[in-house]
Amino acid sequence: MANDAEETITAISTPPGEGAISIVRLSGDEAVAIADKVFRGKNLNKVPTHTINYGHIVDPDSGRVIDEVMVSVMRAPKTFTREDVVEINTHGGIVATQRVLQLVIGAGARMAEPGEFTKRAFLNGRIDLTEAESVMDVIRAKTDRAAQVAVDQLGGNLRELIDGLRQDIVNTLAKVEVNIDYPEYDAEQMTANAVADCARKASAKLDELLATAQSGKILREGLATAIVGRPNVGKSSLLNHLLHEDKAIVTDVAGTTRDVLEEYVSVRGVPLRLVDTAGIRATDDKVEKIGVERSMKALKAADLVLLVLDASRPLSDEDRQLLDATAGKKRIVILNKQDLPQKLDPAELATQLEPGELISTSVMTTGGVDALEAKISQLFNTGIENSQNTVVVSNARQAGLMRQAKNSLQSVHEGLEAGMPLDLVQIDLTEAWTKLGEITGEAAPDELITTLFSQFCLGK
Amino acid sequence: MANDAEETITAISTPPGEGAISIVRLSGDEAVAIADKVFRGKNLNKVPTHTINYGHIVDPDSGRVIDEVMVSVMRAPKTFTREDVVEINTHGGIVATQRVLQLVIGAGARMAEPGEFTKRAFLNGRIDLTEAESVMDVIRAKTDRAAQVAVDQLGGNLRELIDGLRQDIVNTLAKVEVNIDYPEYDAEQMTANAVADCARKASAKLDELLATAQSGKILREGLATAIVGRPNVGKSSLLNHLLHEDKAIVTDVAGTTRDVLEEYVSVRGVPLRLVDTAGIRATDDKVEKIGVERSMKALKAADLVLLVLDASRPLSDEDRQLLDATAGKKRIVILNKQDLPQKLDPAELATQLEPGELISTSVMTTGGVDALEAKISQLFNTGIENSQNTVVVSNARQAGLMRQAKNSLQSVHEGLEAGMPLDLVQIDLTEAWTKLGEITGEAAPDELITTLFSQFCLGK
Repeated sequence: MANDAEETITAISTPPGEGAISIVRLSGDEAVAIADKVFRGKNLNKVPTHTINYGHIVDPDSGRVIDEVMVSVMRAPKTFTREDVVEINTHGGIVATQRVLQLVIGAGARMAEPGEFTKRAFLNGRIDLTEAESVMDVIRAKTDRAAQVAVDQLGGNLRELIDGLRQDIVNTLAKVEVNIDYPEYDAEQMTANAVADCARKASAKLDELLATAQSGKILREGLATAIVGRPNVGKSSLLNHLLHEDKAIVTDVAGTTRDVLEEYVSVRGVPLRLVDTAGIRATDDKVEKIGVERSMKALKAADLVLLVLDASRPLSDEDRQLLDATAGKKRIVILNKQDLPQKLDPAELATQLEPGELISTSVMTTGGVDALEAKISQLFNTGIENSQNTVVVSNARQAGLMRQAKNSLQSVHEGLEAGMPLDLVQIDLTEAWTKLGEITGEAAPDELITTLFSQFCLGK
Repeated sequence: MANDAEETITAISTPPGEGAISIVRLSGDEAVAIADKVFRGKNLNKVPTHTINYGHIVDPDSGRVIDEVMVSVMRAPKTFTREDVVEINTHGGIVATQRVLQLVIGAGARMAEPGEFTKRAFLNGRIDLTEAESVMDVIRAKTDRAAQVAVDQLGGNLRELIDGLRQDIVNTLAKVEVNIDYPEYDAEQMTANAVADCARKASAKLDELLATAQSGKILREGLATAIVGRPNVGKSSLLNHLLHEDKAIVTDVAGTTRDVLEEYVSVRGVPLRLVDTAGIRATDDKVEKIGVERSMKALKAADLVLLVLDASRPLSDEDRQLLDATAGKKRIVILNKQDLPQKLDPAELATQLEPGELISTSVMTTGGVDALEAKISQLFNTGIENSQNTVVVSNARQAGLMRQAKNSLQSVHEGLEAGMPLDLVQIDLTEAWTKLGEITGEAAPDELITTLFSQFCLGK
């Protein structure tokens, strides 16, 4: 595969914004030489590998100091890309870091494309595609469990599984080859049995992996959860309780000022991505201004609906509309304000609900939250709680290829049942082997690789 | 001064957000030992200083891998804080980096306060206050020139100047001491002359520095500039020309998705901070919806007003309101649309303007932008263009103390004129020396230092 190895690439590898440290990273044959051109301090060409060197970035034209820096020199092959890598740690800030980047480009480096460092790590054989994808999953993880799944995959646990399956298939294919070349009756039957056995085992393993895909998707993206109800039923109070209970709100990072666009709350390991909480928050202590219309909008995007009703008032038309609108959804109906005189007729409500959809509670007491959590965990019987030591498939591309491989294995099975000759069955078995290879990238087309890495962030 | 040296501090030192690399930094006696507790790889306690070490962050309780990392070990004294420093480079992302931070805290580090790393660098004598302040100026710089001024100050050019002045004063004070102890007529007069000479020279140097303070403030914060005018006179066209002409728009960082809240444009080295451009942009090609009311609001915050009039229409009441409202401000009136039939009476306009406030132009041609730039440069005769190699005071705290020192030197002068005895004049000279010491931090009260560093960003 083409590697553009002659080009040394560079990018700012820290998130954009004002921070204490920013990093300009270089990778390629000329990384050290280019960095040395703009560095005043030790001769970087002569420093030992994996050392940190104090000095200044200096504009070679004007001789002016651009920043005070620490430069890390890491020579191939023990680097992220398996090429020579230099990381220039600047004092942070947008302008100063951009100036360093521009100087490095002026000195001969090319601006990296998104994901190009990781792409080189893949092309140079340091990591496979599942590990490369997990790099981005680590960066984008919204909850502890999602980060853990990504880090596990970064360690190669999925790659090892897939490699194992492919090895089994190759061994079986070898037997078929031998059999095709020296056909004898007994050998043919034995080989057919071996093929059937291999296809059955591989298929079972893929089933096991694919069974984790729903949990994986939820872990990765969170369960889009809408809190709906007419004004003043206690939506913001429910929201506050959920957020308060949570030990792992991940988008509220201490010391940052960025707007929180999404809120995540982890309920017994199930990450809920709360939809449209800004609207609920905005109303806060005032009478809630969010009506049915806004609720309807939030509903569309939701995987899970938490519908709040006020037990101290009779069921209204608005309530009925919301009950109707959510009837097809996974929902939990929370009958709030049980501490006030009850005006809502339980019988009428019962006709609108499936058994088990209702939770009664006074304001969201600890007991109420417990019941809600148990209900959510029950509704999404994802096995997330018990998934600590299993491989979880959280990537749609990988799951898709596993399904294709499974279909090919199914064809193998059907072919054998129908008494098809082994050299035809072999085609399907080879196809399964190829699809699995696309997961790890051993058999992935260039186009896929280009597309895949272009979704990465700049500097990775 | 108390140093809390027994405590090892930690923080995430990269900007918050999704990026390729994030850094968890530790500083203190136990930095290496604490990092080693959560690190699986080489024994960090035994690696040489200033080396980069590959390995994994592992939860010591569960044994689970939390992230794949590179750990930089830098032992005192050649570090940012002059203490042992460890930097854990993680795979980036919010959750994964937070997990590493939490583990490090669990292993015995304390969460750092904002600016605490830099505060330790100051308390341990590696940098003075002017250099510490320049660290934040580097991070917050909005233009190339502002970054350059900050980096120059980081190199100690202001500190050297102030230290020089203080040394001169101390030498003179020594002469006064000698004279007070052994009063002889000739010696007294010679000493008085020496004091007068010292005060005059120091005062002149401070004048020189303070003359750069306006440029410094503009460089640092930008010149708040409002583009006003009634709808459809060409405000957005002017904005686009300004932005297009500029080679140093610094808030549009490639590859980032954050909203641009402020726009900076550098006009012959003068950074204009454009006020309320979102409103102008929003109207774009449509008829501009921004009327006088909105313009009035933008005016309040402005240091400079660019008032656009339409030469192809008679002066309207709205125009007159805007001319009135901006009469006290530094303003440039741009008479646009000179290419259309002229309906605006120049005689009427002339009565409302000071000479030189007007620029006539058809749409903003290159010539028009040139004239505007020349006018801005003339209006803010800041010397920014020629300030390449001078020390620029960009910090209000520093400028304030310089003014106080100057006042004390003025008292020295007046005391000598009035024939006051030298031991009284000495008090004012000592006061000037103390105020200058507060600039560099040699004589700064603890309270000031605490307040100053608390304005820093977390992790620095």
